[in-house]
Amino acid sequence: MAKTVVYVTYKRGVLDPQGEAVRGALASLGFQGVRGVRVGKYIELDLANGRPEEQRAEVEKMCRQLLANPVLEDFRIEISPSAPPE
Amino acid sequence: MAKTVVYVTYKRGVLDPQGEAVRGALASLGFQGVRGVRVGKYIELDLANGRPEEQRAEVEKMCRQLLANPVLEDFRIEISPSAPPE
Repeated sequence: MAKTVVYVTYKRGVLDPQGEAVRGALASLGFQGVRGVRVGKYIELDLANGRPEEQRAEVEKMCRQLLANPVLEDFRIEISPSAPPE
Repeated sequence: MAKTVVYVTYKRGVLDPQGEAVRGALASLGFQGVRGVRVGKYIELDLANGRPEEQRAEVEKMCRQLLANPVLEDFRIEISPSAPPE
């Protein structure tokens, strides 16, 4: 099983309303010293085995077509080595 | 500046409807070989400097009180080394 993780975050400079809401909520709960919060997505994909370089290209296509909004968001892909075939 | 990242994911065995929706959407876009998708949160906290062990305890409290639902979700905390004081 190849585990692939995609991180989707707002680009720097894009307002993150969910992060701002969390920052405000933390402050109202008494947590001092939180200067900023950004909330993104953490997406785990369980892919059928394949060559890592092909998988990366495929996952990049998924990000551009569905998982991220390239206008507002950045994405980062991490592919862990597949387990050896059994 | 200390950057702290919190990953919030559904516990194994808990149905993830957003992940299921993404899996279905990827399949309908023609992406074969996606056997499962889990969607979690990736939260970046910008904390005022402090001792790492105190920060970790503080962030664990934030997770239990606000950032995660301990009944359904797991969380993982990563604290990067703070920049040296200027």
